[in-house]
Amino acid sequence: MSVEPRTLKGFRDFLPSEARKRNYVINSLKKVFESFGFEPLETPVLEYEEILLGKYGDEGDKLMYRFTDNGERRVAMRYDQTVPLARVVAQYANELPLPFKRYQVSNVYRAENTQRGRFREFTQCDIDIVGVNSSISDGEILQVVIRSLEILGIKNFKILVNDRAIFEDIPKEAIIIIDKLKKIGEEGVKQELQEKGLDINLLDTVRMAKPTERITQVQNAINDERIVFEPTLARGLDYYTGIIIEAEIEGYTAGSVGGGGRYDNLIGMFSKNPIPAVGFAFGFDRLLEALDSMNLFKMDPSITKVLVSIFSEELQKKSLETVTLLRKKGINAEMYLEVAPMEKQLKYAIKKQIPYLLVIGPEEVEKDLVTLKALDTRQQQTLTLLDACNIIA
Amino acid sequence: MSVEPRTLKGFRDFLPSEARKRNYVINSLKKVFESFGFEPLETPVLEYEEILLGKYGDEGDKLMYRFTDNGERRVAMRYDQTVPLARVVAQYANELPLPFKRYQVSNVYRAENTQRGRFREFTQCDIDIVGVNSSISDGEILQVVIRSLEILGIKNFKILVNDRAIFEDIPKEAIIIIDKLKKIGEEGVKQELQEKGLDINLLDTVRMAKPTERITQVQNAINDERIVFEPTLARGLDYYTGIIIEAEIEGYTAGSVGGGGRYDNLIGMFSKNPIPAVGFAFGFDRLLEALDSMNLFKMDPSITKVLVSIFSEELQKKSLETVTLLRKKGINAEMYLEVAPMEKQLKYAIKKQIPYLLVIGPEEVEKDLVTLKALDTRQQQTLTLLDACNIIA
Repeated sequence: MSVEPRTLKGFRDFLPSEARKRNYVINSLKKVFESFGFEPLETPVLEYEEILLGKYGDEGDKLMYRFTDNGERRVAMRYDQTVPLARVVAQYANELPLPFKRYQVSNVYRAENTQRGRFREFTQCDIDIVGVNSSISDGEILQVVIRSLEILGIKNFKILVNDRAIFEDIPKEAIIIIDKLKKIGEEGVKQELQEKGLDINLLDTVRMAKPTERITQVQNAINDERIVFEPTLARGLDYYTGIIIEAEIEGYTAGSVGGGGRYDNLIGMFSKNPIPAVGFAFGFDRLLEALDSMNLFKMDPSITKVLVSIFSEELQKKSLETVTLLRKKGINAEMYLEVAPMEKQLKYAIKKQIPYLLVIGPEEVEKDLVTLKALDTRQQQTLTLLDACNIIA
Repeated sequence: MSVEPRTLKGFRDFLPSEARKRNYVINSLKKVFESFGFEPLETPVLEYEEILLGKYGDEGDKLMYRFTDNGERRVAMRYDQTVPLARVVAQYANELPLPFKRYQVSNVYRAENTQRGRFREFTQCDIDIVGVNSSISDGEILQVVIRSLEILGIKNFKILVNDRAIFEDIPKEAIIIIDKLKKIGEEGVKQELQEKGLDINLLDTVRMAKPTERITQVQNAINDERIVFEPTLARGLDYYTGIIIEAEIEGYTAGSVGGGGRYDNLIGMFSKNPIPAVGFAFGFDRLLEALDSMNLFKMDPSITKVLVSIFSEELQKKSLETVTLLRKKGINAEMYLEVAPMEKQLKYAIKKQIPYLLVIGPEEVEKDLVTLKALDTRQQQTLTLLDACNIIA
């Protein structure tokens, strides 16, 4: 076979060690989302092109994966999870009583320039509350974000918040420049403002803005000092209509690990009436990177806790019984898959970083015991299976 | 907005009630897979066309979603999880020590005729052991299947097994006909054999075949009477080289809920040498349908266990504290998202089938108690939050 095994640029295989981390983060987040009553939603990876086209600006239309399918339909691949949510809310209006609190974790597709370290397939992790415009719902989104970061073991973080209302009297061009404050610094912002013929004092006007009543309401209700009012925060201005949110992890400088806000004009795009909504999307890749850099993946190097070796053809059945018992005790246990020299079985366990090896030879069988070998210390002891379970678990 | 909200034919939205069932089954299966030491693998939804093309026969090439991407590359959407596995095994040969035990749960895409009740996006759920050809590995696959069905609460099932060797002296055309025995019956098979000019006695030759030594070995090792030798079982003959497996649930007649077997010539397609493998794929949609028909989804109608109502603007904060405490106790709890009449809040809880409503009014606050209302019986009692937790949990 002459086909070279390779992956498309911007697309990734996740081998077990990475896939396990991803599963861990997804499961942790889902648990938090569900503890707040958010429910899962799944939408297809392909949509009619007309559903997605024109919803993400010119850039979006350009980066979207679009093609003609076998039935001559124009189709497009999922570009984000918000437009599909808007479609679902309109399409199943009778089945989905509002407020609708949903989470969605799925991959989206953008033909990005991979030179900029971007991926063409990446995971989005969204929570949204649809159908209510209240400070309580704004606050709930903040609470979910805080709880999510906490559950992942992240202690030092900030949730920056702003209100779209802050920008009411500021020219749009200036807001886009001021939003870059953290990236290009005060001097950079002022220079750009000047270059565009805008008043450089606009930066200070924005910076000195006081929190709006709504922001104060939300902050007072949640009462968490990690929620910080940041009047220069804009995040894709056109989109948001109320609170704007961005999560930052201290010590992780690659960027925010998620953002969101209130967008009361978007979800109703397929409906007759506007439908208020507030939401947040975790930047999944960044979150993983941050956790990695902070050494916060507390998982064992191996899924398997113990390898049950096979002493001989005759004793194979004994090993099979034992490994089944271990699993019944809730222990992830592998049996070696061949009758092979003990040395080879030991090597497999070491290579896979399985912490324990269990040996059941004729002597062990006679005394109804097992020999448990800890592969880090290489110490071994012969004991009852129950005692072995207690050590392994 | 004039765009009609609709889903592509053969594609599905999974609203929360369905999505929760799907998550439940996926999580249950993953837990079983991991208890046997299978590890997760993720591969992209898009592959170079040349990787997938020609691997699934003419039918596969026809049904595959293929297109030219923005960078003029010919790409194809994931058609199954086995060819990507073969690619991964070749591409990361140095990083993946064999035997490699992996599971993968992801969606695959086939432009099927939806008239036949088929979907164009559906979930596959595969386990495979790559790099070893032993009866122990055959047996392990059977054990995983048995444990998976058991954990989902399915008691009466059969795992049909056969060995490719049974068909050694039977013409390929005859095998394809005999494989249809369950569908078209004995008379149907004999008629088709005759029509094709084949010996009608071939059916009895196959039916009377005795288990091969390998099958006997596997059956003796696992020793489970639900593993049944079925000499007429063929399942896409060209593919399998050893054991052939099919899982059937008694009382569910729409078809098998999964199948697999040994395929020692497939995984090596991108490598220099053949690599033995054995695996099994659950038919995810059928499995869900079977569980539904047997009433085996034991989940509560609502993710949320209790709705904490808001008595008044002033007491909103008290409700927020309470709902946070409930979540800390591990209880999925929602707070109503607006200050609204109690009647409206009650209605929301009933609509969402949340079992309990918690009220914290001025009297409750004074006595440091809460009022808990069970929404099925409409009975309520005023008690400490701790007592309420014990009732809700």
